[in-house]
Amino acid sequence: MSIGIFDSGIGGLTVFKEIAKEFPEADIYYLGDTARVPYGNKSKETVIRYSVEAANYLKGFGIEALIVACNTASSYALDVLKENLDIPVIGVVKPGVETALRFTENKKVGVIGTQATIRSNSYLKLLEEKNIQVFQKPCPLFVPLVEEGIVSGEIAELVVKQYIDELVNKGIDTLILGCTHYPLLKDTIKKLYPHLKIVDSSQAVAEHLHRENLHLNGSGKRKIFITDESESFERFKQMLIGNIPLEKIDISQLCTL
Amino acid sequence: MSIGIFDSGIGGLTVFKEIAKEFPEADIYYLGDTARVPYGNKSKETVIRYSVEAANYLKGFGIEALIVACNTASSYALDVLKENLDIPVIGVVKPGVETALRFTENKKVGVIGTQATIRSNSYLKLLEEKNIQVFQKPCPLFVPLVEEGIVSGEIAELVVKQYIDELVNKGIDTLILGCTHYPLLKDTIKKLYPHLKIVDSSQAVAEHLHRENLHLNGSGKRKIFITDESESFERFKQMLIGNIPLEKIDISQLCTL
Repeated sequence: MSIGIFDSGIGGLTVFKEIAKEFPEADIYYLGDTARVPYGNKSKETVIRYSVEAANYLKGFGIEALIVACNTASSYALDVLKENLDIPVIGVVKPGVETALRFTENKKVGVIGTQATIRSNSYLKLLEEKNIQVFQKPCPLFVPLVEEGIVSGEIAELVVKQYIDELVNKGIDTLILGCTHYPLLKDTIKKLYPHLKIVDSSQAVAEHLHRENLHLNGSGKRKIFITDESESFERFKQMLIGNIPLEKIDISQLCTL
Repeated sequence: MSIGIFDSGIGGLTVFKEIAKEFPEADIYYLGDTARVPYGNKSKETVIRYSVEAANYLKGFGIEALIVACNTASSYALDVLKENLDIPVIGVVKPGVETALRFTENKKVGVIGTQATIRSNSYLKLLEEKNIQVFQKPCPLFVPLVEEGIVSGEIAELVVKQYIDELVNKGIDTLILGCTHYPLLKDTIKKLYPHLKIVDSSQAVAEHLHRENLHLNGSGKRKIFITDESESFERFKQMLIGNIPLEKIDISQLCTL
């Protein structure tokens, strides 16, 4: 079986890494839309357009399931993608919520993400259906911090506290990292709030796939496409998953799909 | 006379504001490419493509001069734009360099900007031609800080110091803010380094236009186009230039120009 993963850029590589580890025989096709990253500050309409274009591109490789590894795209475009595609489409929101429901004891859960993800209330809606009290906070500086490699130290800790203190003060016992970049800040968050249970989307998606019993056997092929050259993508790819080569595709191929 | 200004997003509004103040009778057409912001982390090829599309769109309004208010686009796409267009094309790099040459006494100038602007060496080349010793530093966190509205306080000061201390330690007496977002951090930079002379692109461009003797008289029309809805664009526009309405254009109009 072959699976497609797409993200606005780097973040989804944390998902790629988990899937590749958990399902070594799956064929995996990844698209990072580095020419238009980030999605988190774009409108719903634009996020849907970009997501449909990315999905159509990956569909060309005969993928049998699609993982939307971007929280913003999962929040805004999942329904449209499910309507348009005749294969299973898996976002990161539902798996994250499932994991949070298993973790929380006091039923108070914090959700952090991009402006767009938080504005969409995608996590909030699913959690409130289960009678969870939800406290949300957009953290627009986290993605640039991670892309700059500032994931620990004084600046990272100050920025983390600036955003998360107020959630912790509300008494949450579980925090959903609602953006695939944020796992890179997990150690700093754990250091500042050691009692918190942290939900990492990439692990949640891999667990979800196991539960869904998808038969992800293939020849272990891995292909990574990007829409623009990017030093930080190259650096992260190397750090997370090593020497898999990158292939650049022309953005106008996406625009006209 | 009518003039076009384009930028990847918000930053160029600092240029819009200065031009509108200095040339109240000019007709001004502004395009902010908010659907693909930022340009500073994109490749040269992609920046050129986006810049040509934006210029062609503004050309449709019969503009008689084009200001490229984005340092990244000025660094990478200015030559291509000059070849393609039969009107004067003014970037922010040359005006910034002219102002720095007037300011510096010890001939040591610092340049800060996005990854792409610094990698292009656009400022470095022009300054070194005038026997200036140049110290450069990309500051990728400044744009997200400004867009988050964090332009003063502990986090802003720590981040400013993290980038600029090393330039100041080299003995620069002048610092070029090589990104149209950065003027919003000017007060914090001045507070930390009161002896530095700061070159602000938006003022430099307005001074350059005065020297060029362009006849910018018209009916004082102002039009602002964006390629995507954006809360931070709306907030900045309101703060900088008030109630001028925004008009959203469809990104596919640009892709196919």
